[in-house]
Amino acid sequence: MNHYQKTLVLKTRGKDFHRITREIEEIVSESGVKMGLCTLFVRHTSASLVIQENADPDVLVDLSNFFAKLVPESGHYIHSTEGPDDMPAHIRSALTKTSEQIPINQGRLVLGIWQGIYLWEHRQHSHRREIVVYISGI
Amino acid sequence: MNHYQKTLVLKTRGKDFHRITREIEEIVSESGVKMGLCTLFVRHTSASLVIQENADPDVLVDLSNFFAKLVPESGHYIHSTEGPDDMPAHIRSALTKTSEQIPINQGRLVLGIWQGIYLWEHRQHSHRREIVVYISGI
Amino acid sequence: MNHYQKTLVLKTRGKDFHRITREIEEIVSESGVKMGLCTLFVRHTSASLVIQENADPDVLVDLSNFFAKLVPESGHYIHSTEGPDDMPAHIRSALTKTSEQIPINQGRLVLGIWQGIYLWEHRQHSHRREIVVYISGI
Repeated sequence: MNHYQKTLVLKTRGKDFHRITREIEEIVSESGVKMGLCTLFVRHTSASLVIQENADPDVLVDLSNFFAKLVPESGHYIHSTEGPDDMPAHIRSALTKTSEQIPINQGRLVLGIWQGIYLWEHRQHSHRREIVVYISGI
Repeated sequence: MNHYQKTLVLKTRGKDFHRITREIEEIVSESGVKMGLCTLFVRHTSASLVIQENADPDVLVDLSNFFAKLVPESGHYIHSTEGPDDMPAHIRSALTKTSEQIPINQGRLVLGIWQGIYLWEHRQHSHRREIVVYISGI
Repeated sequence: MNHYQKTLVLKTRGKDFHRITREIEEIVSESGVKMGLCTLFVRHTSASLVIQENADPDVLVDLSNFFAKLVPESGHYIHSTEGPDDMPAHIRSALTKTSEQIPINQGRLVLGIWQGIYLWEHRQHSHRREIVVYISGI
């Protein structure tokens, strides 16, 4: 039984999807685990995880547009001292994922062929984001 | 310590909730794990997981109606080549779960009495869907 | 390898966020696990988990207001026999989390400094809620 934990640090370029599939796969490879589980955990409440299509980038544009409309930055929020993009960022995080789990088989994540892992930065400006990656298995 | 991994393959009947509680419980039973964790992972971005009420089927109808209104197929999406139901399917997946975890105790999932596990097909037509089930424990 | 499972029972005070960070940390401490994974699982479909800001309580007020508008109790639902707050509670649960995973390092949850763990009661009245906490690691 192996246990492996590593923190992936990412400097985001502001509100956008940051594909981290390759970085996570490298950590899985480092861990030496052939069959097991990979857990991702975002240590923030204004950025989140989403596993989405990795082929047509328009999917991410539409997803972004949908959330911009659903949780508008122009909305009236009580919590506004950190800027108009902060409270919507919290809500978007609550609607998506703080943690995600992907089984590992034959030393690789069992992602579907069209699945990519993304850190979704919900703030307008660049932030330093930490994703804890925990891997256990044999 | 046991590790068990199996892929549940499901041919969906188009947009609907497909209850998979029994199938998952059978895999837990096969695994021989008495105390541990069961992870479900959907290998798709237009179908997702949801744990919801298993008693009154109207709950699923209301849930379906809510999402039909929240993420309309008549909306304007840039990604439209795969049909008007594809982009809404991606968004609905992002709003629900790609992975889900259920602890195991005394050889059984610790589901509440009213909880059922569902694969939610978001596409209009039937699809072949894969759910990786990973179980570890003692 | 340690395995530890405990059910946290909570009597909610009706629709509100109930912070359970301290209770979960105590269970992690009891487990003796220094590096591993903590899984939380809510055994209900009308209450859910959310990891959100623990500093400014206005964040939770805004989050609550957002969901009150997104999933109104005044909406038309077929499933209405359990009261006007029941179906919205199911939908809000589907939009947030039934399970959540937090890695453990040096005997502590790797939560970010601003992150708190909340059980979100979606029903108007007080309920008895069970959260299964499963911890594994070394």
